[in-house]
Amino acid sequence: MFELIKQSNSARRGTLKTAHGEIQTPFFMTIGTVGAIKGLIPSEVRELGGQVILSNTYHLHLRPGEDLVEKAGGLHKFMNWDGPILTDSGGYQVFSLAKMRKLKEEGVEFQSHLDGSKIFLSPEKAIGIQQKLNSDIMMCLDECPGASQDRKYVERSLDLTTRWAKRCKEAHSNNTLLFGIVQGGMHADLREKSAKELTQIGFDGYAIGGLSVGEPNETMYEILDATCPVLPEDKPRYLMGVGTPQDILEGVERGVDMFDCVMPTRNARHGHLFTSKGIVRIRKEEFKEDFTPLDSECECYTCKNFTKAYLRHLYVANEILSIRLNTLHNVAFYLNLMRQIREAIEDDRFDKFKGEFLSNLKL
Amino acid sequence: MFELIKQSNSARRGTLKTAHGEIQTPFFMTIGTVGAIKGLIPSEVRELGGQVILSNTYHLHLRPGEDLVEKAGGLHKFMNWDGPILTDSGGYQVFSLAKMRKLKEEGVEFQSHLDGSKIFLSPEKAIGIQQKLNSDIMMCLDECPGASQDRKYVERSLDLTTRWAKRCKEAHSNNTLLFGIVQGGMHADLREKSAKELTQIGFDGYAIGGLSVGEPNETMYEILDATCPVLPEDKPRYLMGVGTPQDILEGVERGVDMFDCVMPTRNARHGHLFTSKGIVRIRKEEFKEDFTPLDSECECYTCKNFTKAYLRHLYVANEILSIRLNTLHNVAFYLNLMRQIREAIEDDRFDKFKGEFLSNLKL
Repeated sequence: MFELIKQSNSARRGTLKTAHGEIQTPFFMTIGTVGAIKGLIPSEVRELGGQVILSNTYHLHLRPGEDLVEKAGGLHKFMNWDGPILTDSGGYQVFSLAKMRKLKEEGVEFQSHLDGSKIFLSPEKAIGIQQKLNSDIMMCLDECPGASQDRKYVERSLDLTTRWAKRCKEAHSNNTLLFGIVQGGMHADLREKSAKELTQIGFDGYAIGGLSVGEPNETMYEILDATCPVLPEDKPRYLMGVGTPQDILEGVERGVDMFDCVMPTRNARHGHLFTSKGIVRIRKEEFKEDFTPLDSECECYTCKNFTKAYLRHLYVANEILSIRLNTLHNVAFYLNLMRQIREAIEDDRFDKFKGEFLSNLKL
Repeated sequence: MFELIKQSNSARRGTLKTAHGEIQTPFFMTIGTVGAIKGLIPSEVRELGGQVILSNTYHLHLRPGEDLVEKAGGLHKFMNWDGPILTDSGGYQVFSLAKMRKLKEEGVEFQSHLDGSKIFLSPEKAIGIQQKLNSDIMMCLDECPGASQDRKYVERSLDLTTRWAKRCKEAHSNNTLLFGIVQGGMHADLREKSAKELTQIGFDGYAIGGLSVGEPNETMYEILDATCPVLPEDKPRYLMGVGTPQDILEGVERGVDMFDCVMPTRNARHGHLFTSKGIVRIRKEEFKEDFTPLDSECECYTCKNFTKAYLRHLYVANEILSIRLNTLHNVAFYLNLMRQIREAIEDDRFDKFKGEFLSNLKL
């Protein structure tokens, strides 16, 4: 299913086959939390070079429910996206959003952040929901310890995650891809242990979870340094919920193939825009009469048709179109970065590309 | 500038030439209050058959200010719309939105609804602002009395509006179109007086203002019956701020050529959707598992690609995409209605079309 085409030092260029088409790696997944990208239609994501959409099992389970999505003919048909869809397992949202979390061997009980109703999620249920959604790439249910948990907690948590991973694999009954999630907090040796145990169970790919939860960047890179070399070469590696353009470049450099993050879409809504010269906070007074494009190197609709002065006006006036145009640009920026990364690896000049890209950002 | 091509009883089919192209009448203007349609890009409005965008002088004066728009190269360039733009004079917003309104012969003083700052608007200033915006069709400053004002007030107000109209015409110094606004409240004789006095001054078109302010529909139609026959045949007639599909059909029947209303865009945001079978309130439980299109007779992107169940899900989940898809559909519905109206007049079957359209709505 995964084929490695080229390496540039540790950076990897490959393809990943799914039930809804082949994906070029490394890639970034645009977030469609409840089966909708906030402000964009699926065909726009496709035109910008988007290959995969990520949707959240936790959110879709709460609303509209996996049974309704199944009746609709699956998530692809429901949301009108015919490319691959990756779903997470809900583990991270239970950890970060839900109230009254009760962890047991069997699974996790929690209260919905929407209406407080009690919900029970087990490894088997997480897989069942994802299968009903018709996900192409599914995630095992994991327990995600916070950055502040002590080693003892992380050790116990990790063992539970491994036992759950086994149960997920047993429950997985169709020919979609199932990924295990490496945990182990900020402890290199526990990460290594997790990676080895999951590899022994055997998955179609390996996610690295529980990072970007408040730790310093350098810690994250150290954990990647410890984890990636332990993971099998012939399977894709997915750094969950990461990150800034710099984090993505650091991840690719260490051999990561897949990324997802709310950053391009969420930041767009807050007028925080990514450009080839660095961050533009569009509400700033300095853009009031700036009649130049947001990013002169960007080919997106926003940059080709509107000025910073207009984008600032829309943001200040709280216009809905502001969200749409900003989101379009930020997603274009991320997807364009991934295209450039793939080309750089193909041409064996990834390190040079990374250096130039980051030094431009700091101008 | 205005050419009458065909009449079907009193319904009129014509063309209106502006500095940014020729418009087919009767037409409906999509609202772009502050130089942006809420959720749509200008090219989408164009593709749906939109010919003219209406922007609000009051709102643009407050934010970002006409001087900035002028520096940007005018409103067309600022918002990336190369078709005609109509601007109102600000009179209606001063009446409906502003606080602390003080009416004088010279003009009207009021407080911004945004920050309470004091603003003075005179006929000359209203024209000056609209010229800086580079509007194609400009409106005279008028005083808009509420539906509950007594006859004496309306009489005095009307005389003021007429004197202001004269001053607007004198202030109007470019070759764009300037429209007078007929007032006179719910008094047929005052409407007639207003229409005659404005015609004597001489404008490029005549708006009918101060309707759809809380009066019964029948009253509005009676006022149109009294006003339209008094207006010159060779100039376009614009019923401001109206209205429902039925109101538009009743207006066209009485010889109105132009309409604008927030209804398709605002109602879309509240999940109130127009279809060929009548109103759909998308949040209703009955649409939860309705996997059919919103309107099977509609060719818009929303109807071609999504189900009512999905649209309901987006609305209930408060997703931004809900606004975009709903707005796209409602605007498509209105613009499609106008296209059908124009074709029906051309074929001299307007009355039949109107009857069929309305009886379908009531199914």
